[in-house]
Amino acid sequence: MNLKIHLVTGNNHKVEEIRSLADNELTVVPISDLVGEIEVDEKGDTFLQNALIKVETFRHLGIPLVADDSGLEIDALNGFPGVQSSRFMEGRPYSEKMAEILQRLDGEKNRKARFKCAAVFYHPSGVVLAVEGTVEGSIAYEIRGEQGFGYDPIFVPDGYDRTFGELGQEVKSIISHRARAFKKLFSLLRLFFSNIDTEKHHKSSE
Amino acid sequence: MNLKIHLVTGNNHKVEEIRSLADNELTVVPISDLVGEIEVDEKGDTFLQNALIKVETFRHLGIPLVADDSGLEIDALNGFPGVQSSRFMEGRPYSEKMAEILQRLDGEKNRKARFKCAAVFYHPSGVVLAVEGTVEGSIAYEIRGEQGFGYDPIFVPDGYDRTFGELGQEVKSIISHRARAFKKLFSLLRLFFSNIDTEKHHKSSE
Repeated sequence: MNLKIHLVTGNNHKVEEIRSLADNELTVVPISDLVGEIEVDEKGDTFLQNALIKVETFRHLGIPLVADDSGLEIDALNGFPGVQSSRFMEGRPYSEKMAEILQRLDGEKNRKARFKCAAVFYHPSGVVLAVEGTVEGSIAYEIRGEQGFGYDPIFVPDGYDRTFGELGQEVKSIISHRARAFKKLFSLLRLFFSNIDTEKHHKSSE
Repeated sequence: MNLKIHLVTGNNHKVEEIRSLADNELTVVPISDLVGEIEVDEKGDTFLQNALIKVETFRHLGIPLVADDSGLEIDALNGFPGVQSSRFMEGRPYSEKMAEILQRLDGEKNRKARFKCAAVFYHPSGVVLAVEGTVEGSIAYEIRGEQGFGYDPIFVPDGYDRTFGELGQEVKSIISHRARAFKKLFSLLRLFFSNIDTEKHHKSSE
């Protein structure tokens, strides 16, 4: 299909992660290349709503867009930080955010948690494709590992005894919430575009 | 594919319209059959966001859902009533809402307007498909016709000299914003489900 899509994010880590998940028919470019630094009012109640708000903020550009919204849900904190994952203690480094989370979980035996990601594709014809990806796991008792970003150093995915911060991109590219969401999204995209191409072919041969 | 989907709406006119657009492989049932009278907090800024909020409000049911959000955009009123189409003068009959709109356009030569519809499908696997449909037209100088619902009696679609209220369902089922959106959505659905079926087939024959 050979498609160029712009990714609505100001987070370079995400650009790298998502690029590594795309096959070579898909070129993922940060939208900041077109419009400079971005600001999006993420006021949705869910990851899906926020990801949709991100692409709709730039729909006036009339080009194919992708965005994601993701976060960590901790059962013992009733799903917190959830959609507030990035805004919680806004402006503070993640080392402090993670320390605060570990503090809130002090003495808590139920460490069950999951990372969720909603990934949305917007096509200028007005078609939106969206998917969700989840990875189940638990919250570690201390910050471990230097790889990844965000809350990666306190999240231990089920089936492993190390955090995403220790496991790094090689494992994340297979089992992470973002990997699962974007792989599903890209396979929907291939389906969608193969159909559009077929339609065009039918029309031109009529 | 033989799919049953529940439509998130409290509006019986919409149930009828959307049912008439589905082919016989698709059974459209109002969600009120399952959960009684519904209330959704439509606080999105766009039709797409509101339609997504509608399906997400009932995602806990774990069943395939569809919803739409639609409205009238009038150029001379800077797109008003837009996403406020149903909430504007809430509780008042549409005859009064339409009279108010005609009053606001009194003496205005630019009658250009369009109906827009965002239609969203939600699958319990976390896949969301969404499309938009638009019909361009103009605002009549008086309320005309008894068919349809909402603002139909003041909207004259381009290429016609009668309102949707006069033209009725036969024309609406071909050119209306809702017809265009749902036909696109249902064809995406067929594509999506034919692929799911193929995947299942592949897996079971592995």
